[in-house]
Amino acid sequence: MIRLKKPNVVVLGAGYGGLMTVTRLQKMIGVNEASITLVNKHDYHYESTWLHEAAAGTLHHERVRYAIADVIDQSKVKFIQDTVEKINLEEKQVLLQNHEPLTYDYLVVALGFESETFGIKGLKEYAFSIANVNAARQIREHIEYQFATYSTEEEKRDERLTIVVGGAGFTGIEFLGELVNRVPELCREYDVDPNKVRIICVEAAPTVLPGFDPELVEYAVNVLEKKGVEFKIGTAIKECTPEGIIVSKDDQVEEIKAGTVVWAAGVRGSRVIDESGFEAMRGRVKVDPFLRAPGHEDVFVVGDCALIINEETNRPYPPTAQIAMQQGEVCAKNLAVLIRGQGELQPFKPDLKGTVCSLGHDDAIGVVFGKKIWGAKASVMKKVIDNRALYLIGGPTLVAKKGKFKLL
Amino acid sequence: MIRLKKPNVVVLGAGYGGLMTVTRLQKMIGVNEASITLVNKHDYHYESTWLHEAAAGTLHHERVRYAIADVIDQSKVKFIQDTVEKINLEEKQVLLQNHEPLTYDYLVVALGFESETFGIKGLKEYAFSIANVNAARQIREHIEYQFATYSTEEEKRDERLTIVVGGAGFTGIEFLGELVNRVPELCREYDVDPNKVRIICVEAAPTVLPGFDPELVEYAVNVLEKKGVEFKIGTAIKECTPEGIIVSKDDQVEEIKAGTVVWAAGVRGSRVIDESGFEAMRGRVKVDPFLRAPGHEDVFVVGDCALIINEETNRPYPPTAQIAMQQGEVCAKNLAVLIRGQGELQPFKPDLKGTVCSLGHDDAIGVVFGKKIWGAKASVMKKVIDNRALYLIGGPTLVAKKGKFKLL
Repeated sequence: MIRLKKPNVVVLGAGYGGLMTVTRLQKMIGVNEASITLVNKHDYHYESTWLHEAAAGTLHHERVRYAIADVIDQSKVKFIQDTVEKINLEEKQVLLQNHEPLTYDYLVVALGFESETFGIKGLKEYAFSIANVNAARQIREHIEYQFATYSTEEEKRDERLTIVVGGAGFTGIEFLGELVNRVPELCREYDVDPNKVRIICVEAAPTVLPGFDPELVEYAVNVLEKKGVEFKIGTAIKECTPEGIIVSKDDQVEEIKAGTVVWAAGVRGSRVIDESGFEAMRGRVKVDPFLRAPGHEDVFVVGDCALIINEETNRPYPPTAQIAMQQGEVCAKNLAVLIRGQGELQPFKPDLKGTVCSLGHDDAIGVVFGKKIWGAKASVMKKVIDNRALYLIGGPTLVAKKGKFKLL
Repeated sequence: MIRLKKPNVVVLGAGYGGLMTVTRLQKMIGVNEASITLVNKHDYHYESTWLHEAAAGTLHHERVRYAIADVIDQSKVKFIQDTVEKINLEEKQVLLQNHEPLTYDYLVVALGFESETFGIKGLKEYAFSIANVNAARQIREHIEYQFATYSTEEEKRDERLTIVVGGAGFTGIEFLGELVNRVPELCREYDVDPNKVRIICVEAAPTVLPGFDPELVEYAVNVLEKKGVEFKIGTAIKECTPEGIIVSKDDQVEEIKAGTVVWAAGVRGSRVIDESGFEAMRGRVKVDPFLRAPGHEDVFVVGDCALIINEETNRPYPPTAQIAMQQGEVCAKNLAVLIRGQGELQPFKPDLKGTVCSLGHDDAIGVVFGKKIWGAKASVMKKVIDNRALYLIGGPTLVAKKGKFKLL
C-alpha cells in the first residue's frame, strides 16, 4: 500500500501517559509510517510522584526530572517546547502559545493534572501547591527563607516556622513524611530551636488517607505524630490569608497563623480540556474503552485527564502514574493499528499492582498484590515502584541515571 | 604576693579583636591570676571578612564560623552567651539581656560593627546588609527565592532578577565578585535565562574603591563589567522602597526596580558605645595609645569600635580584621601588665601588611608589602590572609578545620 501522506500523530504532554505513548509508539512504527510530534511546556519530564520530595527539600529537583531528548528517538519524533492553549476539534488543530498551529490526524491528550482549590477563598493567592518542578522548588526555597528570616529578625514571629499542609490524602501524607525529616536539618542549618516549629495537617474528611486500610492509616498517623505532626481531622479550610488559614470544625472557627501553607488536597484535569469543548468534569474526559474522547475517534485521552469508572466500586480510578503508563501502552498500540489500518483496537483494562504511600525515605505503608506492608519493607517497595516508572519509559540507562538506590 | 580577690576581666564580643584578646590572654596568665569572662551574642565566632561569600551563596555559612568553645581554654575563660545591652561605667557593670549584670575590674569592648544607613529612607526596612551570619544566609535565601519564584510566576517580573548592590567600597566589590560567579549557577538551578539577570552597583563617590590604586581599580571594574555588572558611579541612593531604589545623579532622578537590594556602603561601631555614655563618633571611641577609652583607664576598646587616627593621612584607620587582631594582641599584653601590677603598658602601632580585595574565588587585586598584585597571584594571597586569621586565633587545628585550601 502506498500512502500519499504520512498521518500526523500529535501527542500533548510529556508526563507519564504522554511519554509512555511516544516511547512505545516510536518502537512500533517505522520512520515512513507516521510523523510523530510531541509538545511539552518544558524540555524535561518530571516524576510528578516524587515532587513532594523536591518541595520538602529532601531530594534535589534535578533528580526528579530528565531531558525528554534522552528518551525519544529523534529520527522519528519531533519535539516542540511550547504551551498548549486550545484544541480546535473541528479543524483538527492544536493552538500553541509561541508556534504555528499544529494539524493532526491522530491526537493524544496527556496534559496531566492541575491543582483544584474548590473555590476556597485565598488558596490560589496565598497557598502553594506541589504542581510541578517550578512550584516544588519554590516551596523548598520559601520554607528555607522563613527559617533564615526567623534567625535574623529581632522580634521573633514563631508563626513563621509553622507549616500547614492542607489535605491528608496521598500527596499530603507523603509530603508530611518528607517534612518531618527535613525540619531537623533546617533547624541545624539556621540555628532554630526545633520546639518552635509546628507542622499542622488539616483534613476536611473524617479520616487520614480516606480509602486506605485503617490499620495502615493508624501506623502512618502514629509515625508522623511521633515526629511532630499535629493532625486536625474533620476540619475544613475556610479561607487562606497572607497570615495563615481560617478553619472550622463543628461550627467552631479558628485562625491558624502560618508562614507556609501548602495545599495538597485537590487535583483536576487540564483546563485545556474545558476550553476545547470536550464533554468533561473538572478537566477529565470520560473516555471510551479504547481511550478515545466520545464523538472524536481520532482523539485519545490518557493520564490524569482521562476519567474511567472502576465498575467494582462505581467510582473513578484515581489519577495515578501506574494507570497513566498502562494507558500510554494501550494508546500506542491503538495508534499503530489506526496508522496501519490493520489489526484491532485494544480496550484498556487497568492492572492494579498496588499502592505504596511513603512516610519519608525510610518508612512507608502500602498494599501490594493484595498484601499489607509497612516500615522498611514498604519503603523498599516504594523505591522499586519509583525505579520501575523510569525503567518503563527510559530503560536501564535511565534507571542508572535517575534511579533511587544506593551502590554498595 | 597574695591577692585577696582575683580581678574580673570581662571581654565583650568574640569577633577578631575580642577573641584575639582572650586567646592571647589565656596563654599569658595563670588560672589564679584573674577571672576571665567572655560575652558574645552567639556561641560561635564568624569571619566577618568572609560573609560576602555566605551572602552570595558561594561558601556555606558553616564554613564561615566556628564554635567559640573550640578556641578558648575553659579552665581559664568563662563563656556567657548573651546580648550586651549597656555598660554602666560608674558602677563598672555590664548589663546583659538575659543574665545578671557582670561586674568588671577590667573591661574590653570589642563589639564590632553595625550597618550605617545614614538616614537614607527605607534602607533599614527594605535593604539587606551583610552584617552577620544570620543576615548573610537570609540574603542567600532571598536571592534564591526570587529565582525560584520567577520560574513559577505566569507573568514574569524581570525586576525580580535584578540585584542592586549599594556601595562600591571593599564589601560591595567583594560581594559583586562572588555574585557574578553565583548567578550562572542560579540560572542553571532555576532554569532562568542569564540575560534576564541584572547586577547593578550604585556608588555615590566618583570612583569605585575610593583610596585604592587607580590601575587596580580599573582591573577590578573590567573584570566585573565583563561578567555583567553595571556600575552607576557618582550616583546616590535617595530612597529604598519595596520595589527597588530611587537614585539621583546630576539632579536626574531615576527609579531602579529590583527584587534584591543589598546595602554595603556604610559601617559604624556598636550602639552600645553610644548608649553607655562614651565620648564617641558613630559608635567608635577615639582610644588612647594603650587602647583605653579616655577617662576610663580600666576600659579597653578594640576592633571596629576603636577609632585611631593614621597620622600620615590624618584620617582614621579603616576598620579591618588585621588591625582588630593586632589590637587584641596588644590589649592582652596590657591586661597582663595591669593584672600583675608589673611591667609597662605597650602603645598600639598598626603594622599594615597590605590589603587584598577579592573578585570571586579565583581573582583579586591588592597591595601587599607595598607591591601591587592582581589575578591568580592576588587571589592566592587573599586565601593566605584568610587562613592567617584562623591561625592567629585558633592555631593549625583551626586552619585544618576551616581553612581555605585544596588538598591535592
